[in-house]
Amino acid sequence: MLMALLTVAEALARVTDGLVPLDAEALPLDQAAGRVLACEMAARLTQPPFDASAMDGYAVRAADVASLPARLRLIGESAAGHRFGRVVEPGAAVRIFTGAPVPEGADTIVIQEDAEESDGVVLVREAAPGRHIRPRGQDFSEGQVLLRAGRRLGSRELMLAASMNYPELLVRRRPKVALLATGDEVVPPGSELAADQIVSSVPYGLAALIAAEGCEAMSLGIAKDDTESLVTLARSGRAADILITIGGASVGARDLVSSALRGEGLELDFWKIAMRPGKPLLYGKLGHQRVLGLPGNPVSALVCAHVFLVPMLRKLLGLAERAQPSPEALLAEDLEANGPREHYMRAVSEWTAEGKRRVKPLPSQDSSLMAAFAEADCLIVRPPHVPALSQGQRVRIIPLDD
Amino acid sequence: MLMALLTVAEALARVTDGLVPLDAEALPLDQAAGRVLACEMAARLTQPPFDASAMDGYAVRAADVASLPARLRLIGESAAGHRFGRVVEPGAAVRIFTGAPVPEGADTIVIQEDAEESDGVVLVREAAPGRHIRPRGQDFSEGQVLLRAGRRLGSRELMLAASMNYPELLVRRRPKVALLATGDEVVPPGSELAADQIVSSVPYGLAALIAAEGCEAMSLGIAKDDTESLVTLARSGRAADILITIGGASVGARDLVSSALRGEGLELDFWKIAMRPGKPLLYGKLGHQRVLGLPGNPVSALVCAHVFLVPMLRKLLGLAERAQPSPEALLAEDLEANGPREHYMRAVSEWTAEGKRRVKPLPSQDSSLMAAFAEADCLIVRPPHVPALSQGQRVRIIPLDD
Repeated sequence: MLMALLTVAEALARVTDGLVPLDAEALPLDQAAGRVLACEMAARLTQPPFDASAMDGYAVRAADVASLPARLRLIGESAAGHRFGRVVEPGAAVRIFTGAPVPEGADTIVIQEDAEESDGVVLVREAAPGRHIRPRGQDFSEGQVLLRAGRRLGSRELMLAASMNYPELLVRRRPKVALLATGDEVVPPGSELAADQIVSSVPYGLAALIAAEGCEAMSLGIAKDDTESLVTLARSGRAADILITIGGASVGARDLVSSALRGEGLELDFWKIAMRPGKPLLYGKLGHQRVLGLPGNPVSALVCAHVFLVPMLRKLLGLAERAQPSPEALLAEDLEANGPREHYMRAVSEWTAEGKRRVKPLPSQDSSLMAAFAEADCLIVRPPHVPALSQGQRVRIIPLDD
Repeated sequence: MLMALLTVAEALARVTDGLVPLDAEALPLDQAAGRVLACEMAARLTQPPFDASAMDGYAVRAADVASLPARLRLIGESAAGHRFGRVVEPGAAVRIFTGAPVPEGADTIVIQEDAEESDGVVLVREAAPGRHIRPRGQDFSEGQVLLRAGRRLGSRELMLAASMNYPELLVRRRPKVALLATGDEVVPPGSELAADQIVSSVPYGLAALIAAEGCEAMSLGIAKDDTESLVTLARSGRAADILITIGGASVGARDLVSSALRGEGLELDFWKIAMRPGKPLLYGKLGHQRVLGLPGNPVSALVCAHVFLVPMLRKLLGLAERAQPSPEALLAEDLEANGPREHYMRAVSEWTAEGKRRVKPLPSQDSSLMAAFAEADCLIVRPPHVPALSQGQRVRIIPLDD
């Protein structure tokens, strides 16, 4: 078995190589939150569709309020959905509400606080000719492209899509990820534990991470350390875009997962990656399905999922690369020089009074410490062989909030 | 009608006053992502449950590797789930894998790279007595409280809960929010638009925001500007914890929503709030249901939802207050002094090479600009009457990513 030592960057390039966005599907607006847009969207109307009042007040002619105070005849009202249909003649004023169409003839809005109305007469005390009108198309114009493919749909994107008069959106199908835990000793949470048994926990964390990325996780259960069990369960996940195996990929004679899946005809690689935590990684393809074998250790598995799985999912979603560089933070304490492996240090951060993110590694970086990992909020990324850093210097981080 | 001018802080205190966390419900781990924990959780086991190897290698007695090189008899193997059941006698070594139980008698792990195995003999070249053992309970001990009520459950929390041997969790019921759009002129997205009609967009944005907070939105449709239509649709949302009305809460004669709901026996207030955008706010109670009336303008409605609705939802969820102060950022340009209203300025931010978040207000703060709002990523919060600020000074922000 080839046991290459790969850099994280090399491994990442290999696992994401050739991945393209999945098919698109149409979804109604109210089911599209969190999904990724599959095409560009051009406005289907002009907004506002007419010159609209920006204030509650009175629509008047600028010439009529050139000298103040001015007394104008109140001739009607214009409200949203209830337009004043006639022309505002010289000497006239129309009561108007925010967002309502400015009637023909009027070109100025007098704010209601600047006027007084009684017995059909409006006394204008203050006015700025031409002010407080939102011209037609100030927000956007029909045909204008306002949302592009690759955009994640949140509250503002969906509100905008609705404003553009779209009842549904074309989004990427959600990538499906099948999760296969392995190990004779692994039992589901809530089990009465025999000696040496350990509780399966990784699938629950991965499923939450996958869901937070807008993808779909399906759990295949826990395979025993034998080919039949591994193959049977792996086959039940063949509909998934990605099959994740957990554990069983240790060095030497215990690479049962690798052997079993090779028997299925998968082209598999098994890599030692120059990273901490999470050194071993299994990777392969069968047709359209990618197979990623993560370590059984929960901390290592979740760190590897952030580093390798999340970029795979984002390529399948066609998520646009962020224009932003990856976030950085300032060290709250000195760091030693790093060894030959890229180190993903579990860390907690805080915002200082000066608006800076300060980050502090957890005191122990032992990959067996799940409880401590739950208290972290980011990973500090330290490339291989980087020199020591002092408090106040900056480091790249990966935020951990799902 | 009382038309008090309230500060944002006063209004927020009133709308959240008396809100307590909703009932708890038990959910299996794989359905609990994004939910909020309703009780503290103590570990149901000790992790690791035995002294475990931290490396792949050989379990030996420290005395046997005090002088090196040492030649030891290989007497067996200890793997996860396959413990070596006998004692490691002097002169013996046991092949061991990461996470496996350290057999009785052994107190040191020799890393495999530091030893050579052939013909049942292990030649140890390097060893550090006592090293590479994770003592029983190093991660956590049975009975230790590791997760507390009010914690949002993400990938790491769920992985930890599983590791603690919980098959299910007690979480807060999801707050239900009913969304009622109003207005004779308002039509659903995708409609053929008549003159003066406008497309309903706010419910889609609010629903996405509510879902992102781990709550449940139900859309009641679009009420006409008459009491019967408003009352009929509002009644269809009585099962909700919060009823949101959108629009229809303008000043003066057009406060149809307020009148209609008062007729239902609701105690309603109608406030002008010293804030931009989103001045008018309708608020009331009927029994357990809170009613919040947002402006019809999409930008104002969504800003008000961030400022008032999100804190209401978090109280109903029992979400623990963050220890962190609200985020801040550094101004990328000068800001003028603020007027009498708290200003929520739409802004875009970027991370500088020094790890600082720099923020720049959108060129126009007109609340009718939905397309521009979609490009923002945060709100700059400017309290009333604050003086001008210079580039580089810090401001409080509300991030907008759902």
